[in-house]
Amino acid sequence: MSYLKDNFLLYNKTSIKLYDKYAKDMPIFDYHCHLSEKQILENKPFGDIFEIWLAGDHYKWRLMRNYGIDEKYITGVSTNKEKFITYCTVLGTAFGNPLYHWSQVELKEFFGCEREINAENAPAIWDECNEYISKNNVTPQSLIEGSNVKHIFTTNEVFDDLTTFTKIAEKNHNFRVAPAYRGDKIMNIEAAAYLDYLKKLEDLTHTVDSLSALEDALELRLKAFIEVGCTASDIAVEQVLPVYDKAIAEKVYKKAYKGKKISYEEANIFKGYLTYFLMKLYSKYDIRTELHVGAMRNNNTNMLNSLGLDTGFDSISETNSIKNMSRLFDKLNCENSLPAVIVFNLNPKMNTEIITLIGCFQSSELEGKIQYGPAWWFLDNKVGMENHLKDLTATGHIAKFIGMLTDSRSFLSYPRHHYFRRILCNYLGDMMEKGEMTNDIEFVGKVIEDICYNNSIKYFKIAE
Amino acid sequence: MSYLKDNFLLYNKTSIKLYDKYAKDMPIFDYHCHLSEKQILENKPFGDIFEIWLAGDHYKWRLMRNYGIDEKYITGVSTNKEKFITYCTVLGTAFGNPLYHWSQVELKEFFGCEREINAENAPAIWDECNEYISKNNVTPQSLIEGSNVKHIFTTNEVFDDLTTFTKIAEKNHNFRVAPAYRGDKIMNIEAAAYLDYLKKLEDLTHTVDSLSALEDALELRLKAFIEVGCTASDIAVEQVLPVYDKAIAEKVYKKAYKGKKISYEEANIFKGYLTYFLMKLYSKYDIRTELHVGAMRNNNTNMLNSLGLDTGFDSISETNSIKNMSRLFDKLNCENSLPAVIVFNLNPKMNTEIITLIGCFQSSELEGKIQYGPAWWFLDNKVGMENHLKDLTATGHIAKFIGMLTDSRSFLSYPRHHYFRRILCNYLGDMMEKGEMTNDIEFVGKVIEDICYNNSIKYFKIAE
Amino acid sequence: MSYLKDNFLLYNKTSIKLYDKYAKDMPIFDYHCHLSEKQILENKPFGDIFEIWLAGDHYKWRLMRNYGIDEKYITGVSTNKEKFITYCTVLGTAFGNPLYHWSQVELKEFFGCEREINAENAPAIWDECNEYISKNNVTPQSLIEGSNVKHIFTTNEVFDDLTTFTKIAEKNHNFRVAPAYRGDKIMNIEAAAYLDYLKKLEDLTHTVDSLSALEDALELRLKAFIEVGCTASDIAVEQVLPVYDKAIAEKVYKKAYKGKKISYEEANIFKGYLTYFLMKLYSKYDIRTELHVGAMRNNNTNMLNSLGLDTGFDSISETNSIKNMSRLFDKLNCENSLPAVIVFNLNPKMNTEIITLIGCFQSSELEGKIQYGPAWWFLDNKVGMENHLKDLTATGHIAKFIGMLTDSRSFLSYPRHHYFRRILCNYLGDMMEKGEMTNDIEFVGKVIEDICYNNSIKYFKIAE
Repeated sequence: MSYLKDNFLLYNKTSIKLYDKYAKDMPIFDYHCHLSEKQILENKPFGDIFEIWLAGDHYKWRLMRNYGIDEKYITGVSTNKEKFITYCTVLGTAFGNPLYHWSQVELKEFFGCEREINAENAPAIWDECNEYISKNNVTPQSLIEGSNVKHIFTTNEVFDDLTTFTKIAEKNHNFRVAPAYRGDKIMNIEAAAYLDYLKKLEDLTHTVDSLSALEDALELRLKAFIEVGCTASDIAVEQVLPVYDKAIAEKVYKKAYKGKKISYEEANIFKGYLTYFLMKLYSKYDIRTELHVGAMRNNNTNMLNSLGLDTGFDSISETNSIKNMSRLFDKLNCENSLPAVIVFNLNPKMNTEIITLIGCFQSSELEGKIQYGPAWWFLDNKVGMENHLKDLTATGHIAKFIGMLTDSRSFLSYPRHHYFRRILCNYLGDMMEKGEMTNDIEFVGKVIEDICYNNSIKYFKIAE
Repeated sequence: MSYLKDNFLLYNKTSIKLYDKYAKDMPIFDYHCHLSEKQILENKPFGDIFEIWLAGDHYKWRLMRNYGIDEKYITGVSTNKEKFITYCTVLGTAFGNPLYHWSQVELKEFFGCEREINAENAPAIWDECNEYISKNNVTPQSLIEGSNVKHIFTTNEVFDDLTTFTKIAEKNHNFRVAPAYRGDKIMNIEAAAYLDYLKKLEDLTHTVDSLSALEDALELRLKAFIEVGCTASDIAVEQVLPVYDKAIAEKVYKKAYKGKKISYEEANIFKGYLTYFLMKLYSKYDIRTELHVGAMRNNNTNMLNSLGLDTGFDSISETNSIKNMSRLFDKLNCENSLPAVIVFNLNPKMNTEIITLIGCFQSSELEGKIQYGPAWWFLDNKVGMENHLKDLTATGHIAKFIGMLTDSRSFLSYPRHHYFRRILCNYLGDMMEKGEMTNDIEFVGKVIEDICYNNSIKYFKIAE
Repeated sequence: MSYLKDNFLLYNKTSIKLYDKYAKDMPIFDYHCHLSEKQILENKPFGDIFEIWLAGDHYKWRLMRNYGIDEKYITGVSTNKEKFITYCTVLGTAFGNPLYHWSQVELKEFFGCEREINAENAPAIWDECNEYISKNNVTPQSLIEGSNVKHIFTTNEVFDDLTTFTKIAEKNHNFRVAPAYRGDKIMNIEAAAYLDYLKKLEDLTHTVDSLSALEDALELRLKAFIEVGCTASDIAVEQVLPVYDKAIAEKVYKKAYKGKKISYEEANIFKGYLTYFLMKLYSKYDIRTELHVGAMRNNNTNMLNSLGLDTGFDSISETNSIKNMSRLFDKLNCENSLPAVIVFNLNPKMNTEIITLIGCFQSSELEGKIQYGPAWWFLDNKVGMENHLKDLTATGHIAKFIGMLTDSRSFLSYPRHHYFRRILCNYLGDMMEKGEMTNDIEFVGKVIEDICYNNSIKYFKIAE
């Protein structure tokens, strides 16, 4: 039996009551993830515990590298079982790491396996979980439905095929799937494959040989996204850039369109302008903007060349760009075009800078219009969440917070919502027992239910 | 009955003893605030709870905006009662926010109202507090005296009329009021009204058509401030700037004097020089410098245009300027002209940078000569204060700390001193009970008394 | 009797067990310090408690300055006893400061003195400790051996005489002493004494009138260091600089070689290149790189002129250089020349930036190849260590951490290892009791033993 107890992360009676009565059974709205809608539709059963749990999860890969494991046992040629056992070995002593908790919870929740994860138990866990998988039909849909998930927003590029969403909708599942509109590939003008991306966009729209033509194409695609239920968009930048004039951005764009090499500075001009354009577009169609800032990507060129993007070689960037963020928001606001924004910040030192800034741009047109997004990626752990709650409550207002998401590529990540809910209930329960806030448990419970689910449903305009 | 208990924020017996015996009854020296000396002199009774509690308090406005309240109910045309009820509604779920505590404490301390603040109780609280106000003569002076306040430093521009201070002194109150000398308006050379400010200064001194003439005028005014009891000054900058030569600053000043537009860069040249000049002047007259760094102001242009300055649209700036601060202090020190400085820092990520820097410029001429000011503005909350104490004790020396202030525009803010005192006593009491420091309660109590009151009295050269 | 109890810093039964059974008795490997190897060899007995405890310790001087003590009683002309009593007075109320703990522990561990340090007890402590010293032969070697220290790395400039290390080795002590190879003086090309340093290097090698000649000389010296047991090197920079081309660095170097003044920008070019060269050299010889970043040195020119370097006038720098660090590591990695690096970071706001970056450059060639060094200098305290552990475990892997060092100039600093061990055991024990990790105490104990000693032994290739 592992260390996990029923009251995991809940350290007093009030916290336990709050979690059991108000948080635990709320449905899940995973408003930002990287699941494949095609995989959801296909619903192919998983073959073994490696495939479902370890393949494609760069968080786990990274932990193994930090321990000194050879790439052979991470992404290389060794067998699924060897990789699984290696991971269990590494995890056994990863005390304090979120994967240490998540992995243990996932085995328990999805496969009923309560053995403590470590080198010694690894072979037995391998057998037990695989036996479960062979006896049960473990599929994307079974995992979604079993997790009480009602709504999922996948993340899709502007040129992605959207017919899958219609097909999923026709099945009348207990859950709904819609895409978030993501401009990343169109934003990254310096990428080698940029013209390929434009070609894909042109195939779906029209020739985009000018910036205005590109803008029109992006608007057409946004309309198509909206037709399949899209109410959210996604922008990821290392930092918010200054808003350059369209004319200057146009020059850079035309250069790229002719296949010429774009410098770092030129790329930033284009990105600065396009961020502004996209947010203005999102405002026009009342689409929420998920703005991800603070990741420094692809630090290790060797590994980028051998494994590609999103394989565990990103880190937290240093510089904030709070002045640029202020000016961008202010410009849009002056033009009556500031959309609802969720700022996802990857550097904890920036928490209060951003929370206090967004407090300058709220509006009664939407409760909690500018959101401080949940602790994300490298901060998606107990320390990160506790600091997030402390900073958010001290300098913002907790009651309108739209709560947690998974940001995950895995169908096993839903327990992260409960991980967050436990930390939330413990945070509030602790203050209640200490006499730092009301002890009206029903009143507090309502706020918890809102944060767990209701706020995000309203925020993203989901009809229920 | 609200959640507030007698031992609010005190979590063990030693902390309770420390607070009750040493902290609670110490007088208050509010060495930095934004009260109006004229209002103190006039002593006009307040009309209702809105007027005294909610009008003019941009902290509260900001919280309401974060909740999604329409400006109508914040600064707009709705009635006092509607605004009051809206605020109570918003506050009801603002768990973890300092206003959640302060507001509840203020109702209890000043109006004897112990109802928990929330939407349901709002009408009854409105009635109860207003009944109290109608039955009692609630005035600025009654609030000051009832709070055991002995000394108040208001913040005044260099051209402010100072006769009010003399008039207050003539009344022989139990408390004394003196101005802190503030150069903000003279510093902000890019402001539209800059020539108006210079005109006001000229009316009190002489023509200031050169930088030297301006300097002489500022010195004359400082002498006038000193005559009415001034021992402190105030400089607020987004960040400390490089010290530019007087000749370069002179050019900028003359341009401004001719009414020409000043660029951002030119303004910084002038501000960098003037900061240096003012601190040198303060050193000459042995005046303490309150140096406020880290605020990014007026982020929202629309709201600046409709509501003006200081209405809740400021935030925490990103960039430190620790190298500039080091060079400024070093230059002054080399010229034997470094005044006593209290650095107020608004960005918690900078705590240890600044505390370790000021440790390089101490002197036996004054105990704790360079102070790390208390957790301020956005940091004036439980988390901010606890981090402040942890960082200050770990890298500085707690015993010479001059403690808390209100920085407030409201006569109801004095309980913030007790809020800080509770947190201080809990911090020390906890270490005592854990065996991390002496358990000689009398010895520790003496340090607490010093931090609550005695240190600041000495530091600001107050004769008692 | 002082406040120190046996279970100091251990707040539950599991923590106590972990410390007593696994941490307490592990030997010490002090892999980074500033002790004098000559003093170790000479082994001259100490004269009084001042000489051993207070002389030369700029941490203690700094604390006294923060309290407002006159330099006379710190580094000036007053007597040893006066200085000692002044320090005890200052320390008495330095609640929360690491020196408050360290000093008390040192008196107990080395002199059996359990009086609480404060003004009142100071004279008795002076007598008691000096009586102990006069009755016992207190020498560098007795302090090292009595502290169960097995290995010491001193820090030596490239031109230092290395014969002392051979002489120490010939004595067959229970401990071994080896130098870490430090390029600081050769790095600081703008220093007034730079040509003197080059001269010393030339005396040991050959004319270094070109950058290539300098590189060869540095390589020759590294080989000499390796012959006396060196496996570590040390680079200290305010921040990591861009890697400039050798040709550009060569120009700067030649200018300096001719005795010309080097500008700040030129110095950075040289330092940026030399950092790269040295790390490449360390990779070639499989030497670990201790990379110290984040100190802003010599803030106070007056005190630099009167007292010199390393006298307590340094502080924490603001700017990270995480992008430069990423590019430097990536360049070396692409050239298959990235050595094992321990990054020592002085600014706590940078913790997660650096921990996530180094996670991008691990390798199976050495477990925990790129290390996040322990909480250091201004962070070497309870808060700093707790944050270090939280950040390291949340975003890295604790099991391969090489643990603590003293970084000290004093032979009394070894209890800092136990201070760290207590905090480590409390951190893990707390999670065990809360059900946040395994409660297999033997399994956890093994990890603790590794962090206390075994990991560093392996990491630095020490044959036991």
